[in-house]
Amino acid sequence: MVQDIYDKIMMLAKRRGYIYPSFEIYGGIAGFYNYGPLGSQLKNNVEKLWRSFYLLRDNCIEIDTPTITIYEVLRASGHVDEFTDLTIDCKKCKRSYKVEDILEKGTTVEDAIKSGTLKCPSCGGILKNPYNVNLMFSTSIGVGERRKAFLRPETAQGIFTDFHLLYRYVREKLPFGVVQIGKGYRNEVSPRQGTMRLREFNMAEAEIFFDPENKEHPNFNKVKDKELYLFDNEKNMKLSLEKAVKDGIINNRALAYYMYLTQEFLLSAGIDSKKFRFRKHADDEMAHYATECWDAEIYSERFDWIECVGIADRSAYDLSAHIKSSGTDMYVLRKYEKPKIVEVKKLIPNMGKLGPLFKDKAGKIKEILEKMEVKDTKKISVVIDEKTIKIPDDCYEIVETNEKKIGDKFVPHVIEPSYGIDRIIYCILEHNYHEINKKGEEYRIFTFKPYIAPIKTGVFPLISDNKLIKVAKEIDKKLRDCSISTYYDESGTIGRRYARMDEIGTPFCITVDYDTLEDNMVTIRDRDTTKQKRVKITDTVSFIKEKIEISCC
Amino acid sequence: MVQDIYDKIMMLAKRRGYIYPSFEIYGGIAGFYNYGPLGSQLKNNVEKLWRSFYLLRDNCIEIDTPTITIYEVLRASGHVDEFTDLTIDCKKCKRSYKVEDILEKGTTVEDAIKSGTLKCPSCGGILKNPYNVNLMFSTSIGVGERRKAFLRPETAQGIFTDFHLLYRYVREKLPFGVVQIGKGYRNEVSPRQGTMRLREFNMAEAEIFFDPENKEHPNFNKVKDKELYLFDNEKNMKLSLEKAVKDGIINNRALAYYMYLTQEFLLSAGIDSKKFRFRKHADDEMAHYATECWDAEIYSERFDWIECVGIADRSAYDLSAHIKSSGTDMYVLRKYEKPKIVEVKKLIPNMGKLGPLFKDKAGKIKEILEKMEVKDTKKISVVIDEKTIKIPDDCYEIVETNEKKIGDKFVPHVIEPSYGIDRIIYCILEHNYHEINKKGEEYRIFTFKPYIAPIKTGVFPLISDNKLIKVAKEIDKKLRDCSISTYYDESGTIGRRYARMDEIGTPFCITVDYDTLEDNMVTIRDRDTTKQKRVKITDTVSFIKEKIEISCC
Repeated sequence: MVQDIYDKIMMLAKRRGYIYPSFEIYGGIAGFYNYGPLGSQLKNNVEKLWRSFYLLRDNCIEIDTPTITIYEVLRASGHVDEFTDLTIDCKKCKRSYKVEDILEKGTTVEDAIKSGTLKCPSCGGILKNPYNVNLMFSTSIGVGERRKAFLRPETAQGIFTDFHLLYRYVREKLPFGVVQIGKGYRNEVSPRQGTMRLREFNMAEAEIFFDPENKEHPNFNKVKDKELYLFDNEKNMKLSLEKAVKDGIINNRALAYYMYLTQEFLLSAGIDSKKFRFRKHADDEMAHYATECWDAEIYSERFDWIECVGIADRSAYDLSAHIKSSGTDMYVLRKYEKPKIVEVKKLIPNMGKLGPLFKDKAGKIKEILEKMEVKDTKKISVVIDEKTIKIPDDCYEIVETNEKKIGDKFVPHVIEPSYGIDRIIYCILEHNYHEINKKGEEYRIFTFKPYIAPIKTGVFPLISDNKLIKVAKEIDKKLRDCSISTYYDESGTIGRRYARMDEIGTPFCITVDYDTLEDNMVTIRDRDTTKQKRVKITDTVSFIKEKIEISCC
Repeated sequence: MVQDIYDKIMMLAKRRGYIYPSFEIYGGIAGFYNYGPLGSQLKNNVEKLWRSFYLLRDNCIEIDTPTITIYEVLRASGHVDEFTDLTIDCKKCKRSYKVEDILEKGTTVEDAIKSGTLKCPSCGGILKNPYNVNLMFSTSIGVGERRKAFLRPETAQGIFTDFHLLYRYVREKLPFGVVQIGKGYRNEVSPRQGTMRLREFNMAEAEIFFDPENKEHPNFNKVKDKELYLFDNEKNMKLSLEKAVKDGIINNRALAYYMYLTQEFLLSAGIDSKKFRFRKHADDEMAHYATECWDAEIYSERFDWIECVGIADRSAYDLSAHIKSSGTDMYVLRKYEKPKIVEVKKLIPNMGKLGPLFKDKAGKIKEILEKMEVKDTKKISVVIDEKTIKIPDDCYEIVETNEKKIGDKFVPHVIEPSYGIDRIIYCILEHNYHEINKKGEEYRIFTFKPYIAPIKTGVFPLISDNKLIKVAKEIDKKLRDCSISTYYDESGTIGRRYARMDEIGTPFCITVDYDTLEDNMVTIRDRDTTKQKRVKITDTVSFIKEKIEISCC
C-alpha cells in the first residue's frame, strides 16, 4: 500500500516520540492522541512562541480557568442549546454518524432522507431520523445533590465570566486582550481524521475587548502596508491590511490587525506561506456567537485546506449573555469630555407594599428597581432566578430628576483569534518534513525553525573514548544548565548520529574530537547547510543561544 | 473580624489579579479557582523552574496525555476500586461530608457511629451509614453506545500506559524518568479549605523507572553530603542523604536523590527552609500503590503543615497491573554478562485441537501458549478478555529444550515525586508576603525570586512628559521583544508606582528621567534593597536578563 505523507509522518512521529495514539494498550479510541517526549517539547515551544506574540508583542494578559465548567455558564453562552451536531444512527450496525460527514455535496439532509440515499458507510443500511446531539462532555460535581457541569468547549468562557475583574486589572481602559492556553473538549460523534479532529485538544484563544465605536488597534499603523494572504472562496489575493479594510473586505482595523498577527505567528512557527490563506466564512457557516469570521487555513496534502485558526468578531454576544443571566455589571463607561445634565425617570420602591407582597424577594426587587432606567411608564417587571415578576403600580413611585451624567454605558465588543494548537503542530510537521535520497537510502529531515525544534543540539564525542566522553558530557551539562535542551549520543558512527538528529529536526550538532583536547574547540554542524564550524568550548552556549532565541536582542 | 494571613493574601490575590474564585458571577462553587493575569504567569514560572530541574538538570523526558481517561486504564490501576473517600450524608439538611473531616482525633468511625457522637457540623443532626464514594469525575465518550471514562486523578497513568514506547525512546536503558505537567481531578465530597483542596488542580509528576536491584541515581554521589530536612513524626532532623540511606531511614539512594531534588526545587521557588520538612508516611496512610512514601510538607500559618509533594516508591505496582490487564509486554531485560544455556519447558500448541474447540479465539490462545513459561505440568489456563480459559491437555505438547538465555526479564520499579502546583503556589505567596509600616501606612511586598516573579520590571517615565514617555515606551518595547515581561506605568507619583510594583512582587523598576535625555542612562531600582543604580539604556536588557535567569551561565 502506498503511504501518503500523513501515514509517513504519523509512523515517524510514533517511532521517534512525537505523537502516540492514546490508550493504545487498551485498543485505543478515536479522537485522542498523546504527545511523546519530542511532541510535548514541540508543543511547549509553539506555545512559547504564541505567548511571545500575544503577551509580549501585543501586551495581552493571560488567565487560567478550570476545564470543568458549571452548567449556568454554558447555558448562558448558548452552548447548551447550540453546540450540537446533526447526528444519525444506523439501526442495523449500531454506528452513529455526523450527518455532515456522510452527506453528498449539494444535497440537503431532507432530500437525502426522503429519497433514501443516505446510507450507512459501514453496512449500507438506510439511515433515518437525524437528531441533534450536544457535543459537550458532561459530568457532575460533588456527591448527593450533584451539580451539573461540562468540560469546556472553548477556553473563552473562562475569560468572559471574569471580564469585570480583568477590566479592573487593566485599570479600566479599552482595548485590552486576555488569552488562555489550555484544553478544550468536543465529544465528536465519530471522529475519523486522525489528529485533525480530536475530542480533547489544545487551544490558545485571545479575547480582545473593544469599544464598538472604536475597533482600532494601537499598532495598526505600523503594519498597515503588510500584505495578507486572502481567499474569497474563488481566488487568492494578496492585499495590504489598509486596502482590505478600506475596500470593506475586512470589517475593521482591529480584526485586520489580529489576522496579520495570526499570519505572522503561523509563518514564524514554520508554516509554508504558499500553503496558507485566510478564508471568510459565509453567513450560514458561522458559529452562533459570531458576526464576522475568517479562518486561517493551512494546506495539507492529506486533508486539503484545513481551518487552524478562527478569527471571529463575537460582538457583544457573550458579555451581554452573561450580564443577562448573572446580573453582574459588566458594562464599560465611555466618558463624555465633560459631564452632561440629563433628565431621568427613577423608580422609588415602596417597601411598605413590596415587603408583605414579595417577602424574602422584596429586598432583591428593591435593589433592581432602584437601578432600573425607566423608558416609559408601562408595566414594570423584574427577573429573579429566571422568573419574571410583575410589580404592581402601587409598589413604586416614578420621579423625574435631573442628573449629572459622565458618559454612556456599553457592553464591549470582542474580537477572538482562536487557535487549534494540535492542527498547527501537525501542519508544522508536514510542511517541515523532507525526504531525500542519500547514498541510495531514504533520508528524512525535519527543518524546524531552531526556536521550535524540541532538541536544540546533539552533543557527541567523536568516538567512545573516555577522554572525549568526559569533555562532551561537561559541555552537555553546561548547555542544560543554561536551559538549552540537548541530546547526548555516543553510539554509532557520526553520520548515523547526524541522521538521528536530522530525523527529529535538531538544528545543531556539537562534536568533541581529539583536536578539542588540544585547542578547546568543538565542531558545530548546521542541519540545513550541513556546514561545520569550529567554535571555542567557552562560546558554545552563547553560539547556540543566539541561534535559538525567538527574537534577536 | 481579624483577618489571618490566608484572608489577607486571598484578598490581595483577588484585587491584584493573582487568584479569583471560579464562576463567581454564578455564585461560585467550592474547589475551583482561576489564576488571574499575575497568577497565571507565576504558575508558568514555577512550571518553567520545575522543568529546569526535571528536564534539564535530571534529563527526564516529558509527555502530554489526555485528561479524559478510559475506564480500562483506571480499573487496571486500581483507581476504580480504591480511589474513594468514606462519606456520610445528613438526612436532615442534605449535606454530605468526608468522614475523616468531621471525625474527632483518636476516635474510630465505628465508635463514633455506635455512640451517636458523629453529628452534622451544620445542623447537628446525627449521622449514620457511611459509604465509600469514588472521587473520580465520570463522563462518557461518543454517542449511542458510549464508552465509560473518567477525568484523570493523576497524570501518572498516561505515563505508565506508554511505558513500552517511552522505553524504546530512551533506547532501552534504565533508569530513566518521564514527567507530565497538567490537570488532575478529584471530586472532593465537600472541600472547605480554599485553594488547599481543589477539585481541579495542577500537578507535575515524575515517574522514574528503575531496575529494582539497582535503585541508584547517577548523580547521587555529587549530592550525598547535602542535608535533608526530615521529620520522623516526633522530631526534626537534618541528615545527609548518605547517612539517611545508610541508617535505613530512607529506603534507597534513588528515593533519597529525588527527595533532595524536591527540596532544592522548593527552596529555589521561594519556600522558606524553616517552614519545610519531609515526613514519612505511616504504613496505614499510604496510597494503594505505594510501598514507601515521603511527603514534602510546607508550613502555612492558616493550614499548619500541608503536603505539597508526595514522593512514593510505587514499586512495580502500576506496570504489573497494566501488563496483566492489557497483555502488553512491558518487561525489561537485565542482560547477563554472557549468555547462559538453560533448560526450558515449552508448550507446542496443537492447532488441530485448538481450532475446532476455541474457534476465533484459537489464534490468540496459540500466541499466549507459545510465550508461556512452564513451571510445572499442572493444568494450563490462559486469560482472554478477563476470562480464564482452561486448556485441555491434548491441545498442546510440552517439550524440554536447551535455550540460550541472555538475561532476566523483570518489571521496572517506579519512584514518583508528585507535586501539587497550586498548593506550592499558595505557599510561595504566603512565605513571600511581608507587611511593613511605611510612613504610617500599611505597605505590602511580595519578595518573589526574580525568576518566579510574574512581572520582571516596571518601566516608568518620571513624569507624564511626552519626551520621557517616548523613551520609556521604547525601552518597554525592547524588553518585551527580548521576552522580558514588563509593566509600563505613567500614572501617579513614582512612590505610588513603586508601591504598586512591590505589592505584586516585581523585582525591578526602570525610571526614565530628564537626565536620561542627556546621558542615555536610566535608574533601576531594586525591590528588596530599594537601592537605585544608573544603567546605560543599551545595557538594560542584559542587566535585567542576567538577574532573572534561573541559572547563571
